[in-house]
Amino acid sequence: MANPVYKKITLVGTSETSFADAAASAVAKASETVHNMSWFEVAEQRGSIVDGKIHQYQVTVQIGFRVD
Amino acid sequence: MANPVYKKITLVGTSETSFADAAASAVAKASETVHNMSWFEVAEQRGSIVDGKIHQYQVTVQIGFRVD
Amino acid sequence: MANPVYKKITLVGTSETSFADAAASAVAKASETVHNMSWFEVAEQRGSIVDGKIHQYQVTVQIGFRVD
Amino acid sequence: MANPVYKKITLVGTSETSFADAAASAVAKASETVHNMSWFEVAEQRGSIVDGKIHQYQVTVQIGFRVD
Amino acid sequence: MANPVYKKITLVGTSETSFADAAASAVAKASETVHNMSWFEVAEQRGSIVDGKIHQYQVTVQIGFRVD
Amino acid sequence: MANPVYKKITLVGTSETSFADAAASAVAKASETVHNMSWFEVAEQRGSIVDGKIHQYQVTVQIGFRVD
Amino acid sequence: MANPVYKKITLVGTSETSFADAAASAVAKASETVHNMSWFEVAEQRGSIVDGKIHQYQVTVQIGFRVD
Amino acid sequence: MANPVYKKITLVGTSETSFADAAASAVAKASETVHNMSWFEVAEQRGSIVDGKIHQYQVTVQIGFRVD
Amino acid sequence: MANPVYKKITLVGTSETSFADAAASAVAKASETVHNMSWFEVAEQRGSIVDGKIHQYQVTVQIGFRVD
Amino acid sequence: MANPVYKKITLVGTSETSFADAAASAVAKASETVHNMSWFEVAEQRGSIVDGKIHQYQVTVQIGFRVD
Amino acid sequence: MANPVYKKITLVGTSETSFADAAASAVAKASETVHNMSWFEVAEQRGSIVDGKIHQYQVTVQIGFRVD
Amino acid sequence: MANPVYKKITLVGTSETSFADAAASAVAKASETVHNMSWFEVAEQRGSIVDGKIHQYQVTVQIGFRVD
Repeated sequence: MANPVYKKITLVGTSETSFADAAASAVAKASETVHNMSWFEVAEQRGSIVDGKIHQYQVTVQIGFRVD
Repeated sequence: MANPVYKKITLVGTSETSFADAAASAVAKASETVHNMSWFEVAEQRGSIVDGKIHQYQVTVQIGFRVD
Repeated sequence: MANPVYKKITLVGTSETSFADAAASAVAKASETVHNMSWFEVAEQRGSIVDGKIHQYQVTVQIGFRVD
Repeated sequence: MANPVYKKITLVGTSETSFADAAASAVAKASETVHNMSWFEVAEQRGSIVDGKIHQYQVTVQIGFRVD
Repeated sequence: MANPVYKKITLVGTSETSFADAAASAVAKASETVHNMSWFEVAEQRGSIVDGKIHQYQVTVQIGFRVD
Repeated sequence: MANPVYKKITLVGTSETSFADAAASAVAKASETVHNMSWFEVAEQRGSIVDGKIHQYQVTVQIGFRVD
Repeated sequence: MANPVYKKITLVGTSETSFADAAASAVAKASETVHNMSWFEVAEQRGSIVDGKIHQYQVTVQIGFRVD
Repeated sequence: MANPVYKKITLVGTSETSFADAAASAVAKASETVHNMSWFEVAEQRGSIVDGKIHQYQVTVQIGFRVD
Repeated sequence: MANPVYKKITLVGTSETSFADAAASAVAKASETVHNMSWFEVAEQRGSIVDGKIHQYQVTVQIGFRVD
Repeated sequence: MANPVYKKITLVGTSETSFADAAASAVAKASETVHNMSWFEVAEQRGSIVDGKIHQYQVTVQIGFRVD
Repeated sequence: MANPVYKKITLVGTSETSFADAAASAVAKASETVHNMSWFEVAEQRGSIVDGKIHQYQVTVQIGFRVD
Repeated sequence: MANPVYKKITLVGTSETSFADAAASAVAKASETVHNMSWFEVAEQRGSIVDGKIHQYQVTVQIGFRVD
């Protein structure tokens, strides 16, 4: 069957700088073990607060990649 | 502990014919590496359009299987 | 009071063939006891898997009918 | 600015045959006036019942197309 | 009738730089043909991945504008 | 293809009197340019407050009409 | 077992006047056959449009009543 | 037609002890009049507070049973 | 930092007359202690039934006001 | 205006024992400063894991109380 | 890049005793192969009914763990 | 009772620069009166448009802090 099939995994990237950096962090980590990544979807944005300031940005992303 | 535990994975099946075929495609691909599949849930239905016609049906399914 | 009132009931139709057949199965069963059915809404699509293949399609439908 | 921008419109296709045909009907109608259609998303599936049988399938689809 | 009425349209802006730029891209494109834009709502954030890196940011925004 | 196709547009009606009036306001404005309107769905109800009192009712409605 | 148990049924009331009247219509119809009704929840508000005006208000309500 | 069809009803069980007991209470009440119950889904968990303490646990469950 | 910040609080207004009156009731009560209220959003509409008739309308509203 | 108005606040109770205990913990803490509490709604259930075991149960509850 | 990244997996734990035990069962099973588990979120609670009584509690949990 | 309890409040931060700045603005304002803030969750992202350009970014955040 030649129809491509994709798998979606869910990662939470973190960053002390921004949500954008947190998302990039999740994709970078995934690229260490997953190939053929095709798209991502932002599912949740949250973060931790320390001493009254945003300390860590956390982005939950679903990443889709083609299954060989 | 004898209580069965299941894992759910998320796949996106595709087909140029129908949503039904796209779902079957996802299950068929999963069966290559996963055993003891028990049920699936349709999470999303979408597709691509080319030259004003539906070109590809895409079905996101969550598949549940027993973890040994 | 002449304003029509409708009731909605929730059925789960099943089929070994397709989601379409499963929905038709639910409506057919409802027609045995309910009259004046007017519309249906698909609420959920799922199914069982046996031996690595889709074995049963299950469609949860809400059916609306006029209450006399 | 060279970044492509897409617009999403919402159509409800209908068919006396199947949900698949209803979705194709919506895309066909859109193709009469919209160009560069790229994808669709199924948002809702429902239908009418007449004399105890499904009479019309109705599929709400969101269609995305590139804005020139 | 003097009460203002607004219309909401749905656009998907894209950018190779950031979600913020993608949203601005959608608003800029809308401003070419729509007047009296008043607000926007972020409905979805996703993107494409190429060679293991985020390649395109995609933001679905609903834009509200007053109908004359 | 004889199957009717409908389009859904999203309007926000406003009124200083009531939500009902705001919804009617949206439908009345739509009727200036859209024909064959068939149904509406309330998607959101909100409003503005001035000097501690409700000043404006705002109703987001989706309006469906047949596309010729 | 002395703990009270409630059942929830779903009705769609209609009215040519207002959503409030449509809700009251649903409760009135339910009172013909159901006793011990205790509360209702508005689940959906929609309606039909005829000749460019709201013709019928439709309110889907879930009604809870104690089961003896 | 041999395909089984299921009906889902919605009950609210209550208990002064726990959510688990409230759910069991709903199932027990249903068993007085419904046969062939097959599964339940927890839809909502809430409760009443009296004198600053939880007084009653309330669990809304949807119960599925085969229709003969 | 000159950027305005708003706080949202959640109130449930009640009325024996209508949902509109219940919402106004919530805003009136809030105005006793909160200043600079700017908008409200309807989050839930429900009510109690006594002797087969709607006895009390209950509207959950989120009220936004500027924090000084 | 004699119609009662309620306020809803959101607390997260925690417990090393159970979700039930976590919910009771949130209500007990609220009772230190809030009077006339009337009901609660469970909005979210989650927890922390330490050394492969559930270490803390966390329940987000919305608590409603009458505003004098 | 030193920012920690987490992965979320979805398991369904079961128990003939309680939802709490079902959740613990899922975490225990995950601990056999996954390290550095940090939190869990309850996504769904359901169960099977046999002979008119709750026979099995089923809890869908999402488990987050740090990816090395 | 030694189990920590948290309260969640909802703020809307604004900024003429970015969503990130709007979120930081909300946290900064909260820090003036609230202590022991622990985390935040992004609930909504929207903004105003003036003269065809994004004029203000608005982020609704829920902020959790420990109650002493």
